[in-house]
Amino acid sequence: MNVECLKKTIRDVPDFPKKGIIFKDITTLLKDKDAFQCAVDAMLDQVKNLEIDLIVGIESRGFIFGSAVAYKLGKGFSPIRKKGKLPAKTQAVTYSLEYGEDTIEIHEDAIGKGAKILIVDDLLATGGTSEAVVQLIEKLGGVVTGLSFLIELDFLHGKDKLQGYDIYSLIHF
Amino acid sequence: MNVECLKKTIRDVPDFPKKGIIFKDITTLLKDKDAFQCAVDAMLDQVKNLEIDLIVGIESRGFIFGSAVAYKLGKGFSPIRKKGKLPAKTQAVTYSLEYGEDTIEIHEDAIGKGAKILIVDDLLATGGTSEAVVQLIEKLGGVVTGLSFLIELDFLHGKDKLQGYDIYSLIHF
Repeated sequence: MNVECLKKTIRDVPDFPKKGIIFKDITTLLKDKDAFQCAVDAMLDQVKNLEIDLIVGIESRGFIFGSAVAYKLGKGFSPIRKKGKLPAKTQAVTYSLEYGEDTIEIHEDAIGKGAKILIVDDLLATGGTSEAVVQLIEKLGGVVTGLSFLIELDFLHGKDKLQGYDIYSLIHF
Repeated sequence: MNVECLKKTIRDVPDFPKKGIIFKDITTLLKDKDAFQCAVDAMLDQVKNLEIDLIVGIESRGFIFGSAVAYKLGKGFSPIRKKGKLPAKTQAVTYSLEYGEDTIEIHEDAIGKGAKILIVDDLLATGGTSEAVVQLIEKLGGVVTGLSFLIELDFLHGKDKLQGYDIYSLIHF
């Protein structure tokens, strides 16, 4: 399955999470065994030349791709979660959303100093979350070696917030 | 790494999410590449003789193990999420918690009629969530072929709520 075929397994859901937004639903890709395998393998192929010590995945859909990528690469996986979900001592970053703000956390001991980190998420949209994730990793002394996304929404220019970082997006809309 | 060594990579966090509870923190297992690989492989080994069409994983930590298991088995993955997170038409089940209740959802088209489903989650505690997940899958015509957990808290007797189903738990506390 090539990337164009893969793209067709993603479903458009109009008016989610609110009126006027067309949501890219990846559950139709995930449940298709060929599409899911192909997506993970193609994401892996994009990052094959990077030096990576650890995968960081972002709650919740980022866990799906981050985990499969980590397993296949034989690397560990550290989750970044919404506020209050991680049990031990955390570092947090608060960032702006279109309306209001959000806070994400990582365990303080999740990343060793100098560890080379690949960030994995399903979607690069405005880049606000990814920018916060990069901050969090660097706060702990990690080195972001790349960001891997299943989908990038080019028209939202998320890359502008991530200048100087290597971005690998499999599917572009 | 054997299961006893694996068990030692799980961290006890006292008084989370509330006073008196000792939380089993799996992030210390996940970030250890050998432990993470070993855990997924050992979970796979437990279910190797089952007929499986699709993996169902439960938000959020269930996504981590469910995804890796699905990828390695070459199967699709369908997520079960908290209320309001899935974009298309869903089926929901509401179930009781110690205080109050919770609702989980799955897309109506997530599972084909007669599909053989392996449920994957990180933890079997009281069994309330797993029981609701089984109901949801059967509502859609799926056949639960087994439930796979990284950890089972034996003293909470979650198995009592899942009688008649095959349960595979890797680590027991």
